[in-house]
This record gives sequence, structure tokens and C-alpha cells, in this order.
Amino acid sequence: MHIAIPLFPAFTALDVVGPYTGLAFAPGFTTTFVSDRPGPVTDDQGALTLTATASYDEVPRPDIIIVPGGPGTTDALSDDGLLNWIKRAHEHTAWTTSVCTGSLLLGAAGALRGLRATTHWSLLEQLEHYGARPCEERVVIEGKVATAAGVSAGLDMALTLLARIRGEDTAQLVQLVIEYDPEPPFRAGSTKTAPPELVERARELLSS
Amino acid sequence: MHIAIPLFPAFTALDVVGPYTGLAFAPGFTTTFVSDRPGPVTDDQGALTLTATASYDEVPRPDIIIVPGGPGTTDALSDDGLLNWIKRAHEHTAWTTSVCTGSLLLGAAGALRGLRATTHWSLLEQLEHYGARPCEERVVIEGKVATAAGVSAGLDMALTLLARIRGEDTAQLVQLVIEYDPEPPFRAGSTKTAPPELVERARELLSS
Repeated sequence: MHIAIPLFPAFTALDVVGPYTGLAFAPGFTTTFVSDRPGPVTDDQGALTLTATASYDEVPRPDIIIVPGGPGTTDALSDDGLLNWIKRAHEHTAWTTSVCTGSLLLGAAGALRGLRATTHWSLLEQLEHYGARPCEERVVIEGKVATAAGVSAGLDMALTLLARIRGEDTAQLVQLVIEYDPEPPFRAGSTKTAPPELVERARELLSS
Repeated sequence: MHIAIPLFPAFTALDVVGPYTGLAFAPGFTTTFVSDRPGPVTDDQGALTLTATASYDEVPRPDIIIVPGGPGTTDALSDDGLLNWIKRAHEHTAWTTSVCTGSLLLGAAGALRGLRATTHWSLLEQLEHYGARPCEERVVIEGKVATAAGVSAGLDMALTLLARIRGEDTAQLVQLVIEYDPEPPFRAGSTKTAPPELVERARELLSS
């Protein structure tokens, strides 16, 4: 199966690399990083540059698309090249997926109408603009559309999809190979478990 | 604080991006990706290329080094440029760290002698070659040396370090911003919880 992952300026790197790792470590997947044109694309921290090896036009019909999010989503929402690529690819994909605010891009491309979907916790209501029903879950699957919550949720989504595509055995094998037995040092990863004042601080930080 | 992350051919991308995300999302960190010379370096899947923006010589005294692992570690173990850089940087770092088989590189550079350390579960005993005491924990901290278990453990390590460097509040803030509230779909991420036949299959896959 052929995976295509679009890169746009100020994407979040873990949105890309988490799900890439969850799927690409299984046999039988090839991944192409795409952008408006082949070349380097720099992340939201300005420190990490990934290489797109193909333009959107060169990869019109991938089996799976994984759309990352990040601060760059705001500008990407008016990137017609990207949105048209998502729209057209979605007509033929086996899976159309996103991580974090990548779901807003799926929404802007018309792929979420009438569907339950998720995104980063701080922007959940924005999904309504695109006719989606916001859903505070880590991974939401509706037909062939899978959306993951913020940043680190892409790996959970990828293993969930891998189990559907190749079976639970393969998904568990990849989980063991990448030793995904998480032990976050704190319980602050969700608005449900983080102290309320921390949620406020994070909201301010994210909206600044 | 200045973080330097070395890139060598066939590194594992999540080993790099996990801990980068855990630290770089906090204020006050800058990250430089280094290699034998500036330029593109491709990962273990041959699909993802990251850019090193400086040579080892150009970044002799970072505050933190994060050494990734991956199949490329085998060749990197005889890369004198990399090993000498680790050795010299380690003399001045605030933190010397690794993810997955990156700890074998720390070991080869002489940074683990007499210390408890961890690595990918399948290669744990190899640490003994470098005078380290293998330790089956997700994150092992000995003085200023932190080693993380396989691939996905780098994020847990980074948040643990961030709490020590900037305080628990900041680490929790980053955890919430990246919504790190993991929900792996299976309990197969550790040899302690995965079915024994899966562990054997993974071992065969990794040694092939």
C-alpha cells in the first residue's frame, strides 16, 4: 500500500513521524512525502527540515493519506494546491487520515461532512465549521476516515489502522518492535486529567 | 539550552522526533541537527530524509545531546567522527542522552562505563560490552546520563528530563500541549506483556 504524507511550512514533526512509524515499520507499505513541489519543508520549531520527494501532482492516488497538523495549518487552510490534492486523493483512498489540526484540513477539503471527528483538544469546536461532529476521543474512525487527537495521538491511530489493514498480529508486532509501552511521567496529557490551571495556561500559550 | 541531535544513515525517525518534541516545545531550547557534514540524511525506511544543518565540528559543546538509534547504529559504531564528537561533547554537556540503540553509541564513546543503562529490549545485553549495567526500564537516569528504551521511549525520557531542567509544571504543560495521553490499542509494547510467540517473531525480524 502506498502512503502519502503532505508537508507544509510549520507542520508539527511528531504529527508526521508518529503515524509514519506505526505503519511504515510493517511490511508492504511505501511512503512518499509530498508538497507543492519536491524539496525541503521546515517544521513549526524552525529547526527540523524534512524532504518532500514528490509534488502533489505526482502522487494523485495514494492508498492512504496522513495529513499532519501544526501551527502551519492556519496558512495551509488557504493552500488550494494542498486542499485540492486532499479532495481528489480522498475520492480513491482506502484510508483518509489526519493527526491533530490536520483534521481541519480534511474538513476544509470537504472530507468530514456529517462525520464524527477529532482534532487537538484546544480547537475541537472548529470542526463544526466543516460539518463534522466534534468528538473528544483519541482516535475516531468513520468509514474510511480516521482522525487522531493532538500531536502524539498519531501513533495510536496508526496501530489501530494497521490492525484493520493487516490484522492484530501485525499491529502488535510493530508495537513490540517500537517498544510502544508508554510511561508518561505525569498524567497531564488530557484536559480530563491535567490540573485546570494548567489547561488555562496551555490554552493561552496555544492561542498566542 | 542548546540541544544537538546527530543524524547518521538509517537512523530511526521516531528516536529523533519523539525526544525533540518533548524538549523543543518548551521555551528556551534551540535544537541543531548535526552530522559528519551539513545536508540530507535518510532514515531506516529509506523514505524520510531529515536535514543536518551543521557538522559535528561546528557544534562541539551543546548543553544536551540526544543520540538516536536504528539499524544504522551497526555502521555508526565504527564512525569515528560521530564517536569522537559524542566523547568530546560529553565532557561538557549538562545531559548526555540516547534513545533505543543510541545507547550503544554512547557506550562505544565511553560514556556508560559503570552506569546502569537501557536500550531496545532485543539488544539489552550488548550494553555489557561497554561496561554498562543493562537495566530493563523505560528511562534510566544516572547522573547526567539518560538512556531510553526502544524507539517510542524517547518522549517519556524527554518529559522526565524537562521536569528536572525546567520543573514539573513546564513538563506537564508540554505534555498537555502535545496531548500525550497515550492509548495504545494493544498491550504488546513490552516483552513483559506481549504474547511469548510474538516476542520470538519480533526477535527473528529484528535479527534478520
